[in-house]
Amino acid sequence: MASIFTRIINGEIPCYKIAEDENYFAFLDINPLSEGHTLVVPKREEDYIFDLQEEELAGLVTFAKKVAVSQKANLDCKRVAMVVLGMEVPHAHIHLIPMNSEADVDFRKPKLQLSSEQFAQIANKIKL
Amino acid sequence: MASIFTRIINGEIPCYKIAEDENYFAFLDINPLSEGHTLVVPKREEDYIFDLQEEELAGLVTFAKKVAVSQKANLDCKRVAMVVLGMEVPHAHIHLIPMNSEADVDFRKPKLQLSSEQFAQIANKIKL
Repeated sequence: MASIFTRIINGEIPCYKIAEDENYFAFLDINPLSEGHTLVVPKREEDYIFDLQEEELAGLVTFAKKVAVSQKANLDCKRVAMVVLGMEVPHAHIHLIPMNSEADVDFRKPKLQLSSEQFAQIANKIKL
Repeated sequence: MASIFTRIINGEIPCYKIAEDENYFAFLDINPLSEGHTLVVPKREEDYIFDLQEEELAGLVTFAKKVAVSQKANLDCKRVAMVVLGMEVPHAHIHLIPMNSEADVDFRKPKLQLSSEQFAQIANKIKL
């Protein structure tokens, strides 16, 4: 069965898309730790990020860099954290989390509650 | 002034080295979240990871993959988390954290207290 991220990539589940190319896809996390929290995934399903081939991993991270540059340029943040945990959804994904302090990157804290209008506005600010 | 990581790379400060090539260096974090917690850095000092050039970033992450593969093969963990926060030391670094659950990757929890013998044993298990 297709992962939830594959269904998002295929348009079966709506998302706030940030960037897409032939091999990679980026969209807003709807349970964000901070405004602009984005997930970056390879289109090809692979559970564990370090099972990606070197070239595919390198491509994923350089694609993520483009998104991170836009986040930092267009949002109120000092820099962008990069986190890969990946025990929950079996489709490798990078969290790009705009932050002003390391405390912003705490997956145990309550997630931001944003309206669909707010998500759309944020996506418009950072989309490539 | 050289960053603490540059001083480690240059041998001015001792470390438990895991891997090294022409451009990158990996060593055990001495305040580990889990056994085998490793830092991976470019030898060239750059504060913010997304200020690395694409090729250098890609090289850093593919170098980190080699370390992560060894960690997973040689330690008792399900997979390896990859985290970049980087507000503290102004020299870009990737945390590679062996984990069995996402709760293992919590920078607010107390760090493991290991002896120098334990660090050396762990380094011997995973070094490339």
